[in-house]
Amino acid sequence: MKNMKISDAVVRRLPIYLRFLNELSKRNVHTVSSQDLGYKLDLNPAQIRKDLAYFGEFGKKGIGYDVDYLIEKIRQILKLDKVIPVALVGAGNLGRALCNYNAYLKDNMKIVAVFDSMAAKIGESINYLKVQPMNELKQTIQQLNVRIGIITVPAVEAQSVADQFVAGGVEAILNFAPIIIKVPNEVRIHHADFTTELQSLAYYLD
Amino acid sequence: MKNMKISDAVVRRLPIYLRFLNELSKRNVHTVSSQDLGYKLDLNPAQIRKDLAYFGEFGKKGIGYDVDYLIEKIRQILKLDKVIPVALVGAGNLGRALCNYNAYLKDNMKIVAVFDSMAAKIGESINYLKVQPMNELKQTIQQLNVRIGIITVPAVEAQSVADQFVAGGVEAILNFAPIIIKVPNEVRIHHADFTTELQSLAYYLD
Repeated sequence: MKNMKISDAVVRRLPIYLRFLNELSKRNVHTVSSQDLGYKLDLNPAQIRKDLAYFGEFGKKGIGYDVDYLIEKIRQILKLDKVIPVALVGAGNLGRALCNYNAYLKDNMKIVAVFDSMAAKIGESINYLKVQPMNELKQTIQQLNVRIGIITVPAVEAQSVADQFVAGGVEAILNFAPIIIKVPNEVRIHHADFTTELQSLAYYLD
Repeated sequence: MKNMKISDAVVRRLPIYLRFLNELSKRNVHTVSSQDLGYKLDLNPAQIRKDLAYFGEFGKKGIGYDVDYLIEKIRQILKLDKVIPVALVGAGNLGRALCNYNAYLKDNMKIVAVFDSMAAKIGESINYLKVQPMNELKQTIQQLNVRIGIITVPAVEAQSVADQFVAGGVEAILNFAPIIIKVPNEVRIHHADFTTELQSLAYYLD
């Protein structure tokens, strides 16, 4: 499994499966069919069966998939069974909103440090975290073993923040700033950008 | 072109091309190669050539693509050459952050109305918009001809908000609440969810 190459599209669907499976598990539902998953998640059941076959879970005909087994497997694949500390730069509205999501992150992935370049924001509390100045970033993320950095600063500052994250040793970056930033090949970057989401949605209007 | 079926993946890349092309145009750069686009956007140049070939722009060997022509074409395809009013429900941190993005939305896609169910928020100003109560939603979005709804409420309220958007006639929804919501088939829904972004990123950690 470790060496198996899973496509980006599948990796993006796994958290969506996981959320629904967690909901089922909480409601004491122990099996689920690909039809039910497909209906609930607006995905093609054949696609779901193909995705889940990647990690050797085929489901039983007429019974379906074992919910708890699937949860465990997906968590393993996404490495959510390990502690993943996350840091965020940019304590504006979006940064605050994301920090408040911490409550939803039941897994071991949590925002453990928040930074901002504006003096007025330093020391503010956001959801039990104190906003720290940028000159503490490198040392703090190394001490806390931060592996993922989130960028919620204005576009003009985003590349500099990314560079500092990389210098501090993060392995992946989630960028919300509306600009393309460059990182070394060994660092994974995802762009989560509101305007591109909205623009691609416009295509589907009649 | 109107009847041509463009895959979702391509539709999602078009706004990314558009942003960079707009940057180039502002800097008075008139042509760009697929190599330059690929380098800047972290995409495969062959993929880019394939995407752009969809709408009959092939680029000239050794010269590249005409930047302004591409901008015009992509804007047409994404329907950004028309006015697209957008409404948002949920005036929390995330909702405020998105309203503040309005400044970036140079195109005719703009958030024109904001709603919240909390009495304390009604009448607050966010970026020149007054937060309105939910009982004004249907009438307001019909008057303003709102076509896209954005949901930034807690998970438990998201389905109800979606239902109200649908009743008011929106054609597409961008949902930020961490829950899967169901809408009629004729309404397009995109889930823009922070936790799933973060979880899929974890997969790429070593």
